[in-house]
Amino acid sequence: MGTATLTIDLNALRKNWRRLNAMSSTETGAVVKADAYGLGAARVAQTLADEGARSFFVAVAEEGAAVREALGDGPTVYVFSGHMKDDDSLIAKYNLTPLINSIDQLLRHAELMKNHPFGIQLDTGMNRLGMEPSEWQAVRDIAMRLGPQLIMSHLACADEPNHPMNGQQLEIFEKMTAALSVPRSLSATGGILLGEEYHFDLTRPGIGLYGGLPFSDADPVVSIDIPVIQIRDVETGESVGYANSWRAPTPRKIATVSAGYADGILRAMGPKTSLYADGVKCPIVGRISMDLIGVDVSEAEQPPSSLALLNSAQKIDHLARNAGSIGYEILTSLGARYDRRYDEV
Amino acid sequence: MGTATLTIDLNALRKNWRRLNAMSSTETGAVVKADAYGLGAARVAQTLADEGARSFFVAVAEEGAAVREALGDGPTVYVFSGHMKDDDSLIAKYNLTPLINSIDQLLRHAELMKNHPFGIQLDTGMNRLGMEPSEWQAVRDIAMRLGPQLIMSHLACADEPNHPMNGQQLEIFEKMTAALSVPRSLSATGGILLGEEYHFDLTRPGIGLYGGLPFSDADPVVSIDIPVIQIRDVETGESVGYANSWRAPTPRKIATVSAGYADGILRAMGPKTSLYADGVKCPIVGRISMDLIGVDVSEAEQPPSSLALLNSAQKIDHLARNAGSIGYEILTSLGARYDRRYDEV
Repeated sequence: MGTATLTIDLNALRKNWRRLNAMSSTETGAVVKADAYGLGAARVAQTLADEGARSFFVAVAEEGAAVREALGDGPTVYVFSGHMKDDDSLIAKYNLTPLINSIDQLLRHAELMKNHPFGIQLDTGMNRLGMEPSEWQAVRDIAMRLGPQLIMSHLACADEPNHPMNGQQLEIFEKMTAALSVPRSLSATGGILLGEEYHFDLTRPGIGLYGGLPFSDADPVVSIDIPVIQIRDVETGESVGYANSWRAPTPRKIATVSAGYADGILRAMGPKTSLYADGVKCPIVGRISMDLIGVDVSEAEQPPSSLALLNSAQKIDHLARNAGSIGYEILTSLGARYDRRYDEV
Repeated sequence: MGTATLTIDLNALRKNWRRLNAMSSTETGAVVKADAYGLGAARVAQTLADEGARSFFVAVAEEGAAVREALGDGPTVYVFSGHMKDDDSLIAKYNLTPLINSIDQLLRHAELMKNHPFGIQLDTGMNRLGMEPSEWQAVRDIAMRLGPQLIMSHLACADEPNHPMNGQQLEIFEKMTAALSVPRSLSATGGILLGEEYHFDLTRPGIGLYGGLPFSDADPVVSIDIPVIQIRDVETGESVGYANSWRAPTPRKIATVSAGYADGILRAMGPKTSLYADGVKCPIVGRISMDLIGVDVSEAEQPPSSLALLNSAQKIDHLARNAGSIGYEILTSLGARYDRRYDEV
């Protein structure tokens, strides 16, 4: 087989959710947007529902429809982009709960779906999604009469626990929601780690479920193994790959493996990244191609038939550092060509 | 609707193939690996078959199966990774033509599928795929008796027309294939542009079909429009997005649009990239999030309901330059969440 294998450890996913749930003083939901960070929203949502999650979060209504189909009736499926134009039929059909971001969206929802559940998203300083304090003041009474199920905001700097922005946003959120008897939510993974005062009534872990920072105790969820197509001997001074960018300093054994940047193995990570032959680090040589990568397997104990990109030694945040990116982008970049397998013992 | 729209202009695709075909002195094939560089292998292959392409190239047998299902019987579907272990049933069922890369693969093919069509891939200096001159010398007679349909190699530096590597690889390819009466192929898009001596019997354009460099005359094939979720006023000194990385130098109007790096809009392109409101350039502000991007729309003539990331003014190679990447990676990164539309007048 020429395609690489991407294995999703559902036990690790369950364990990560349980640990974040144990840290949360209140209800723990799950963020499954972007196809559960590329790992398959249907299977991930089903697994976490089985663990006890009852509140799921997606980016757009189309994603919500897929999650609802996977989960059936019961859990709440919240949509971060809120009530977008022409989304009323999807929202109704799949019983989605839009998180209203603006006065425009509030008016749209009130006009088209007055009795359909919704939540409110407030901006507490990130200037990305949600109503500003002044807007909220203007429409709060109207919104409250419509009966929101949840009021939420999002932290801009929660991955840096000592950032003063965290406390500022907490204070603004408290002020904007004081004396309202509606469940509240402020924290994703980073906010859970900041402590109980950030938890309110519902937390929304995402990256921590999938094995990424800032949840440094997370179990890795994803592993990737890439088949070797062939191994060749390269003499001193010979070049490998596009633009002759790498030259062999001594005679080397070079494996060509069957995956590349079309599989989300970002070109930028090439110069600093190794693959693993059992326990042995084998550096990438030359540029990462669309479907192929050259790897120096000279130190491997025997000619490998496959090499690991993600394993217990090399996690998504290692690749992120190598690529100048973040673990979130490493996950969501993993493409559609993998043979995706779900492991559950 | 919250999802962004990715439109594939099939007329531009046809036109690009026709122009590359007109430049090729011989048969012109089409590379449709990596799901036709992310644009949908089935629809792209059908369109190019309708134009007259009869030879298609994919990276792995699984991709070949999908292309064969789209095309039906007739065209040849070549597999660059060759005859991988356990691929014989896919190769047989979908009548794929593996491009044998090594003596191991040749033995496997001869043992399992002696009478099934195959091609030979030679390494002429890239040290990536194919048999080395010494290996080829050792097995050439055996291979020729098995009757390959094609002998091919791949250029490492064809995107740089003056690179001495091009002439060296041409010379090695000539030597390795002299006096063999088998059709030969050396050139992808870059090689087509190098001139007739590089064309041999079959060319294999890829990126040029999809509107990318080095085919500078290519028509753009992809456009992307992203819906605006909301627009807010941001005061001087307020920050936008994660980690407070951008602060408003003056009062600005900031739109939040519904797409992000989970859609393959690489985080790395953020600082240098703008979106377009009709003709007006609107710079990205703050970090690109997974599903959201902040855009300064202060200069737009009216509040936009959507913004363009790819259009006639901003092409894949502009985004590539902004991200420190190449047009190929921009295309293959575009994710599964878009509403993909095929335009054909």
